[in-house]
Amino acid sequence: MTTEILDRIQTPADLRQLDRRELKGLAQELRGFVLESVSKTGGHLSSNLGTIELTVALHHVYDTPHDRIVWDVGHQSYPHKILTGRRAGMAQLRQAGGISGFPKRSESEYDAFGTAHSSTSISAALGMAVASRNAGVHRQHIAVIGDGAMSAGMAFEAMNNAGVTPDINLLVVLNDNDMSISPPVGAMNRYLARLMSGQFYATAKNMGRAVLQHVPPVLEFARRIEGHAKGIVTPATLFEELGFNYVGPIDGHDLDALVPTLQNLKALPGLQFLHVVTRKGQGYKLAEADPVLYHGPGKFDPAVGIQQGKPSSRKTFTQIFGQWLCDTAAQDERLVGITPAMREGSGLVEFEQRFPSRYFDVGIAEQHAVTFAAGLACEGQKPVVAIYSTFLQRAYDQLIHDVALQNLDVTFALDRAGLVGADGATHAGNYDIAYLRCIPNMVVATPSDENEARLLLSTCYAHVGPASVRYPRGAGCGAEIASGLETVPVGKGIVRREGQGIAILAFGTLLQAALGAGEALGASIADMRFVKPIDRELILDLAARHDAIVTIEEASIMGGAGSAVTELLHQEGISVPVLQLGLPDQFIDHGDQATLLAGLGLDATGIERSIRARFPMRHDVSAAAS
Amino acid sequence: MTTEILDRIQTPADLRQLDRRELKGLAQELRGFVLESVSKTGGHLSSNLGTIELTVALHHVYDTPHDRIVWDVGHQSYPHKILTGRRAGMAQLRQAGGISGFPKRSESEYDAFGTAHSSTSISAALGMAVASRNAGVHRQHIAVIGDGAMSAGMAFEAMNNAGVTPDINLLVVLNDNDMSISPPVGAMNRYLARLMSGQFYATAKNMGRAVLQHVPPVLEFARRIEGHAKGIVTPATLFEELGFNYVGPIDGHDLDALVPTLQNLKALPGLQFLHVVTRKGQGYKLAEADPVLYHGPGKFDPAVGIQQGKPSSRKTFTQIFGQWLCDTAAQDERLVGITPAMREGSGLVEFEQRFPSRYFDVGIAEQHAVTFAAGLACEGQKPVVAIYSTFLQRAYDQLIHDVALQNLDVTFALDRAGLVGADGATHAGNYDIAYLRCIPNMVVATPSDENEARLLLSTCYAHVGPASVRYPRGAGCGAEIASGLETVPVGKGIVRREGQGIAILAFGTLLQAALGAGEALGASIADMRFVKPIDRELILDLAARHDAIVTIEEASIMGGAGSAVTELLHQEGISVPVLQLGLPDQFIDHGDQATLLAGLGLDATGIERSIRARFPMRHDVSAAAS
Repeated sequence: MTTEILDRIQTPADLRQLDRRELKGLAQELRGFVLESVSKTGGHLSSNLGTIELTVALHHVYDTPHDRIVWDVGHQSYPHKILTGRRAGMAQLRQAGGISGFPKRSESEYDAFGTAHSSTSISAALGMAVASRNAGVHRQHIAVIGDGAMSAGMAFEAMNNAGVTPDINLLVVLNDNDMSISPPVGAMNRYLARLMSGQFYATAKNMGRAVLQHVPPVLEFARRIEGHAKGIVTPATLFEELGFNYVGPIDGHDLDALVPTLQNLKALPGLQFLHVVTRKGQGYKLAEADPVLYHGPGKFDPAVGIQQGKPSSRKTFTQIFGQWLCDTAAQDERLVGITPAMREGSGLVEFEQRFPSRYFDVGIAEQHAVTFAAGLACEGQKPVVAIYSTFLQRAYDQLIHDVALQNLDVTFALDRAGLVGADGATHAGNYDIAYLRCIPNMVVATPSDENEARLLLSTCYAHVGPASVRYPRGAGCGAEIASGLETVPVGKGIVRREGQGIAILAFGTLLQAALGAGEALGASIADMRFVKPIDRELILDLAARHDAIVTIEEASIMGGAGSAVTELLHQEGISVPVLQLGLPDQFIDHGDQATLLAGLGLDATGIERSIRARFPMRHDVSAAAS
Repeated sequence: MTTEILDRIQTPADLRQLDRRELKGLAQELRGFVLESVSKTGGHLSSNLGTIELTVALHHVYDTPHDRIVWDVGHQSYPHKILTGRRAGMAQLRQAGGISGFPKRSESEYDAFGTAHSSTSISAALGMAVASRNAGVHRQHIAVIGDGAMSAGMAFEAMNNAGVTPDINLLVVLNDNDMSISPPVGAMNRYLARLMSGQFYATAKNMGRAVLQHVPPVLEFARRIEGHAKGIVTPATLFEELGFNYVGPIDGHDLDALVPTLQNLKALPGLQFLHVVTRKGQGYKLAEADPVLYHGPGKFDPAVGIQQGKPSSRKTFTQIFGQWLCDTAAQDERLVGITPAMREGSGLVEFEQRFPSRYFDVGIAEQHAVTFAAGLACEGQKPVVAIYSTFLQRAYDQLIHDVALQNLDVTFALDRAGLVGADGATHAGNYDIAYLRCIPNMVVATPSDENEARLLLSTCYAHVGPASVRYPRGAGCGAEIASGLETVPVGKGIVRREGQGIAILAFGTLLQAALGAGEALGASIADMRFVKPIDRELILDLAARHDAIVTIEEASIMGGAGSAVTELLHQEGISVPVLQLGLPDQFIDHGDQATLLAGLGLDATGIERSIRARFPMRHDVSAAAS
């Protein structure tokens, strides 16, 4: 693979020195580099192959970093990273100490805004544009947003607000690949497809060519094109109704269309909207053919593609959820499965195939997902909302106001609870215990292994009222999974080991590490199963029989399960020393989950060490702690 | 005031028996009743006067409660309540034990979905519609939503999802009064105004009349009208692009247009969208002239209108915030004020007048508001987001992912923290301490009186990073307010009374009640000022010098400030009994704030009682608690 042109690019300033005829070659080299690099590290692939030309064109035309580019979601920002001084860093992409898989302000001045969750880019770019206006600084502000992200309400809110904000420079680039992570859903996608189809798209392509043949006087010309497009091609797009000057759609892989169009747009003040059409996986046949498979692969050989290895002997919690959902749906016609655009990530592929009328991908629309579930529950259906812990933050108000307050029977399956590994702090599922347990009526369950996950899913589903089951990313300890749909009592834990001196109360999968530590310490160990309702009886019993209590959870200590224990103890007037182990009060960067947990002292060794440090002689704990 | 027709209506079934010529008389009587009733109890007025005819028409045409009506926001549902058996209940509206000011499922089978926060209705009605489809039940599902609520992203998400959901019956009634609580903002409002203006509106009105003259065959006729409207009047509205059959706009006060249009729509399957134009305050000249003043008045004499009484000697926290914002803006050009459609409620009227270029009402769009602030902060502006505690729940993810994670300099002024009185559980600001303090980088301040509010606003504003100041609805204790913009150290509290035995740690305005209790008990009392960072030094000092600690806050005990104290004590290995006072784990209905607090034992008497009960002899606390 040659990188002759790429080698000359240290910063975008070098890129702007290139002759425009060299850009195609650069794009080709960049595409090769992205493919090779991601195949060695794992990471996002399809989306980055789709944004090669767009990235080259943006940095060629705009004066970055003075001009601001905000990459929505940001998993398509690898070409941007490579062109802005982080080519070498790609070798440690998403690894501990290496560069992030998302734009990050602390990583580069070219990363104008940190992204990862969807649909924030227009709001952020609008804020920047207003700031520039107020400060009298002339610069351009560009939000690059996919069609999936555009369907989220937040993007609409930002467009709606931008449409009435005077004297700002804002360019929204809609990167339309007709494909969020899962296939697209929603009326907006259908609308975009209409914009792209037939006569309109052909005309717009010609328009792109026309732009190429004329350059000055840019402004006048662009206005004429605009008028032409509005008058002849289509009366007014939805985006024009919101106050934007709509241009497109144009071929997002055609630099001869992209560069002059952007040059024209750069000269226009106000609200601009450019609709570009790209293909996920562009230029790598295997990814083009299956962009979902190549969305976020691990390491693979580009020459042969991703090989279906033998399935791991240990199932992921996502798989366990998916299986449980199908088994339960087969027994209960009232079950409805809901995902906000995360069919694969949440384990709903089989469920969709087997129960299509009860499967709802509502798009990137967490707020709607939860209230939609509330509406279903009002009419006697039993909705299960499959959602990542970090994304439930998007629907926090709906969970409180629409579900919990009305005590509606909605089950939340919270995947990616706790640390999430390579995605890092943006996707951390660290806060759910704190933000859920303060809500009346909520049940919060924390399964400790694969079998417990199935048990507690069945239990929370059977519970009539709002309930959540949180489980981590990846596989568990390999526990054997019973095939039934048994339930356990809500709010009751179980003692897993009888010991003395110290009682370890584990909430969730860190139980496994706690078992190791407890064995070494001769401690008692309980699998608490529920943070809420908390098992008062069990805690009082353990407190009475032990000198100290240790709580452990893969969640924020602040407000977490350990605090639920101390609240109870204080309420009961019991003075027993408590050591709360869990996630500290800091944002934790990307890295290997097990390594990160060990670094935080949350493996068996670390837990034992912390307990020994706090309670040096467990047979004399009361003296040590008094 | 005659109520001859209204007297015959016990349920909507009676309404459906009326001759259609009687409906106008009923509307007139209902309007008089609403005005008289609200003038005696206080409550929402303008919005309810605006929905009289729409409510009469809906219950006349649809088979409620079998057909489902979801009232978005719900403060326009008084006519609905009166017509559905709660006319007598209106005398105790929003009072403890009386009926709610919002639809409430537990109150009536006619309240299909509890609402209060904006823009949930389409999601909920869509959920119900899918449930009916899945269960094979034939019914209609109606979301009545204002133009302000329609501008929120959540409504867009629901429309986007509905547009691709097959075989459902869903009618969205857009109640367009060009006025959310504050005057309208946003491109959507402008768009709706265009739909209403000129030729189009006139033609649509004629269309309404045409509907009146023909009835059967309904389906065929409606299809022809639809084709006509699409072909001649306008090519395709934004709502049609999303998959709805758009009808309107029609005059929402003209029963001769409303009833036949709804009758036609009732016969149509699928996704229907009816655009009705109403006027807030309709029929009461004073409210028509100033709908904002009459949005949510207290008691008044309808004959003379709201009288400008002499201003209360005690300022509300909202007023203190508004004054602080203006004073600070005058000193610091970087200050930007942001409100999600709550100019009056958040105290921004003067700020808008004095600093229009730095005032941003972004519409009902909390998610966007916070990320917009993040974008501004990236460019060196200093945004202050003025938002109710309960509405920040809508932007929880944006606060974490866009502000706190990037450690951006955004100040959150959280109004209506704690109990909110007449609005009740839907608006409760009970959870903010728990949901904020678990987020790294956040500062959480809890001023105890008016002067402290100003001090802590200045302090949090000066702090470079995300910070929040929470203060309650209404007036404080009447503390004298210094005029300067002094700051205090972040994370440091102060001792307000030196006593012995018991140390009371107060977070927020319950300090005033705690001072009374502490005096009676001879206790020490600290105004902690900050929940995060918590004042470690002060707590350790007080713990060392006292036998017991009492924490008090107007917030959820679960995960609240008291738990921050116990987390610290356990972390430091200090065993001292702690009594955590605050809001219990339940949703608390509407009622007078002071009465509610007293009922929860959070007045001076109740606090003293709780402390004496828990620590019977404070000079021997250690014995009592051991």
